[in-house]
Amino acid sequence: MRTPYCVADYLLERLKHCGAEHLFGVPGDYNLQFLDHVIDSPDIRWVGCANELNAAYAADGYARCKGFSALLTTFGVGELSAMNGIAGSFAEYVPVLHIVGAPGSAAQQKGELLHHTLGDGEFRHFYRMSEPVTVAQAILTEQNACYEIDRVLSIMLRERRPGYLMLPADVAKKPATPPVNALTERTSHADSTCLKAFRDAAESRLASSKRTALLADFLVLRYGLKDQLQKWVKETPMAHATMLMGKGIFDERQPGFYGTYSGSASGEGVKEAIEEADMIICVGTRFTDTLTAGFTHHLPAAKTIEIQPHAARVGERWFTGIPMAKAVEILSALCKQHITRQGTPARQAPLTHRHQDETLTQENFWHTLQPFIRPGDVILADQGTSAFGAAALRLPTDVNFIVQPLWGSIGYTLAAAFGAQTACPDRRVIVLTGDGAAQLTIQEMGSMLRDQQHPVILVLNNEGYTVERAIHGPKQRYNDIALWNWTQIPQALSQNGQAECWRVSETGQLAEILEKVAHSEKLSLIEVMLPKEDIPPLLSAITQALEARNNA
Amino acid sequence: MRTPYCVADYLLERLKHCGAEHLFGVPGDYNLQFLDHVIDSPDIRWVGCANELNAAYAADGYARCKGFSALLTTFGVGELSAMNGIAGSFAEYVPVLHIVGAPGSAAQQKGELLHHTLGDGEFRHFYRMSEPVTVAQAILTEQNACYEIDRVLSIMLRERRPGYLMLPADVAKKPATPPVNALTERTSHADSTCLKAFRDAAESRLASSKRTALLADFLVLRYGLKDQLQKWVKETPMAHATMLMGKGIFDERQPGFYGTYSGSASGEGVKEAIEEADMIICVGTRFTDTLTAGFTHHLPAAKTIEIQPHAARVGERWFTGIPMAKAVEILSALCKQHITRQGTPARQAPLTHRHQDETLTQENFWHTLQPFIRPGDVILADQGTSAFGAAALRLPTDVNFIVQPLWGSIGYTLAAAFGAQTACPDRRVIVLTGDGAAQLTIQEMGSMLRDQQHPVILVLNNEGYTVERAIHGPKQRYNDIALWNWTQIPQALSQNGQAECWRVSETGQLAEILEKVAHSEKLSLIEVMLPKEDIPPLLSAITQALEARNNA
Repeated sequence: MRTPYCVADYLLERLKHCGAEHLFGVPGDYNLQFLDHVIDSPDIRWVGCANELNAAYAADGYARCKGFSALLTTFGVGELSAMNGIAGSFAEYVPVLHIVGAPGSAAQQKGELLHHTLGDGEFRHFYRMSEPVTVAQAILTEQNACYEIDRVLSIMLRERRPGYLMLPADVAKKPATPPVNALTERTSHADSTCLKAFRDAAESRLASSKRTALLADFLVLRYGLKDQLQKWVKETPMAHATMLMGKGIFDERQPGFYGTYSGSASGEGVKEAIEEADMIICVGTRFTDTLTAGFTHHLPAAKTIEIQPHAARVGERWFTGIPMAKAVEILSALCKQHITRQGTPARQAPLTHRHQDETLTQENFWHTLQPFIRPGDVILADQGTSAFGAAALRLPTDVNFIVQPLWGSIGYTLAAAFGAQTACPDRRVIVLTGDGAAQLTIQEMGSMLRDQQHPVILVLNNEGYTVERAIHGPKQRYNDIALWNWTQIPQALSQNGQAECWRVSETGQLAEILEKVAHSEKLSLIEVMLPKEDIPPLLSAITQALEARNNA
Repeated sequence: MRTPYCVADYLLERLKHCGAEHLFGVPGDYNLQFLDHVIDSPDIRWVGCANELNAAYAADGYARCKGFSALLTTFGVGELSAMNGIAGSFAEYVPVLHIVGAPGSAAQQKGELLHHTLGDGEFRHFYRMSEPVTVAQAILTEQNACYEIDRVLSIMLRERRPGYLMLPADVAKKPATPPVNALTERTSHADSTCLKAFRDAAESRLASSKRTALLADFLVLRYGLKDQLQKWVKETPMAHATMLMGKGIFDERQPGFYGTYSGSASGEGVKEAIEEADMIICVGTRFTDTLTAGFTHHLPAAKTIEIQPHAARVGERWFTGIPMAKAVEILSALCKQHITRQGTPARQAPLTHRHQDETLTQENFWHTLQPFIRPGDVILADQGTSAFGAAALRLPTDVNFIVQPLWGSIGYTLAAAFGAQTACPDRRVIVLTGDGAAQLTIQEMGSMLRDQQHPVILVLNNEGYTVERAIHGPKQRYNDIALWNWTQIPQALSQNGQAECWRVSETGQLAEILEKVAHSEKLSLIEVMLPKEDIPPLLSAITQALEARNNA
């Protein structure tokens, strides 16, 4: 007998409205009531993960593909395990809804000494602990559940950040009425006077600019404006770049794209292309330490226009309450009108690196990988040599390039890849991770194999935390890790899984295997042997800057 | 050239004073300055872990052996990953000092947008998030460092709970003066009037009691009173028991010990032995849901005397400010004086289970394991069939029995065992864990092998989260897990490790292998095949109670 429509069903229906088709997490007795409804739901599929931190990472990776995701954990032990993942989603503007199955309302009211609590009869500690890393929170009751679900989701969608719902076991089953109206995204409508002032200010700058450049970064992706940015540079050829967090906004093979801007550590040509302009338009950028090699960017306010999610700046003046989409629309139109006369920027040199078959190093590794990347790929590169080495790749169109340079939690990518592949079963997922990083979250490879996923996983084995070696203490024991047999791991983590593994130490070997796995239906794990202290130049510049600052 | 004595050295010296000889954690650039001093320290040895949650669990297991431990993580990404472990230590009174390496003071003051932050220039979010799960916290500066280190440690030692120190990278290297005085444990000295009133009240009850029983639990262990409790029952034969969290306080083979008290789910004889007394002395007990099979204990205030860390109760009256050690001293003397006339309790029936060689079930598994347990063992049993099945074991003397029935975080034991073995290299460590649980923290097995540990690890493979199946949804997909090849895991997680693995499904097989590994110098992994929905009787009673309450 079908159970009557209840709060659990309402919540699942709203998750679907937001774009989620899956729910990640780990069961616990306080969330099993809700989980029964998930199993019965025709819209949302349960994806069990090996632990809650990995589940949070997976939800983050899923949301970076689908625009939204949800995570289910249990009170105390589950939610606190997930906390680091939610914090990373908050820092990097990824809307993950964290649903926490909690003890029943009556037990909470009575202050009972339950398992998964601090044994003090208090039930709000963890809700409060989540407040700094979520943009909206609610404790659901029978009375408020539907209203609060909508309120939290609306704020999440507007701010593109995680939300938190405490769902007591009894409340999940309370009767509810299906939603009628769509969720209001509560986008602000800019005041027309303000818009005009912004347009006028921007126009006066652009009309007199002789050389305008465009620097776009991750908030463009988070606010769904990638297509608009691509159209912008197509209609108005101009020098453009991203920082590492925005890599993948543009087709990096098109004329006018100069590379990954990283302050003084920028690759050849991109620093000049951006900084030497007399007007630089920065869209969705946040100038954090690793992105700018320790704040070595030179983009003074006076010669920049800046677009943020809810405000825009021209020179020293801020115009608040302007949604990013509107500002982009205005500026791209102004550029089309005024910049076209500046002429077409030079095309980048073609990629012509060819290596004789030789021992792998950081440099020739990235050159060997470059031709393997194809349109539509989802590439995840972990914090360290992987992410900062991948900055030098020239991406084709429509690549979802996932890195976490601000929060920077090593191990994120392996679990996030599980989420990304779940979101995009028909896209090829490539994971670039250090050996140190992969150890943190290795169990999620078992989930990939259980679900018959076939990502290409490159484990860069340089025997340790190479990014830490580069910063400090290269010979210190603390930068060593336990040495694993990487090529034996997939088989250990799966009884029925399909996987193929290789270990490579030569460029020719790697190239051959990449060609082999290009269309594989099995999980491919390639252990890439690299020299212990070899690091990409970008990472070298960044780590030197970080060490100097940590020693100040 | 030896660097001058600094805050890092002071902190390490204090850790040694508190009883730690090791420091667990994961490096990150904000803690490398401090880590250099750890590597150079003759007193404290660095133990790198595969991730921070496992490191926190390992520190907890270490502290349950040595009485104190310390954990080092990095700002944001590290400390939040560890949070669930620290919360469990808080809930269960385990003093783990959480040291968080943080960005330098200047960068914090300037509000810089650094990696491992929320990108908002704020540096106190995570400190505040830690407040509910630590008993004392401090942000160290050059001026306050030594004072604050002492303050936090003193409170930790008094309250037996975790503490938190934020250590900016520059502060670690600031000059300091070595400590002169011992840490003050700030134990309260009970008012003599209050003591007398307590003694008189207790004496009047005990003098007229015809049948007195003793129920001791985990706070006895946390406050270091195990020897006193053993002496108590040796000098005054009386019926005694523990709950699951206090298992191991007593030599369970001695006359008068009746078993693990668990409310209505208590094994044969122990419920009557405790509840039918006319006066029950409860020492260090907390009556939480899983310990009491859903609050089914019958221990009314009127017929109980209760000892807590800083207060004691006789009937309906509390006497505050009495340290547990003092109350134990008073009551044990009173019992010796007044109870002896009650006569010697019956000895328990000897353990005579013998099984023909048969397929393993929960019941015969525990019977087969029983003779393997020997004095001096450290046994860790994970939340689920492992812990609640192990309740039925009759422990010999001097067994450190580690379970987490209040916080109840599955996966805790594998990583905690790594810590326990590090603390007690000469003791045999036995891990009893479910397959679902072991997946959460599996990478720490690599650390065990790296450090050449040789625990005996029994993975109870019943293909899923059996404790959840017992509570709700036995056939639901969410209680399934990815199926691993357990016997291939040690080899995958170690290049040089020494391990032996077996899979058993018959009692005879298991008995033979247990005998073989009894003195092994290699890590032993025994995969024990058990029926999917078979659960120990105690767990069955508990899960029925939990399900009823979650359905209320």
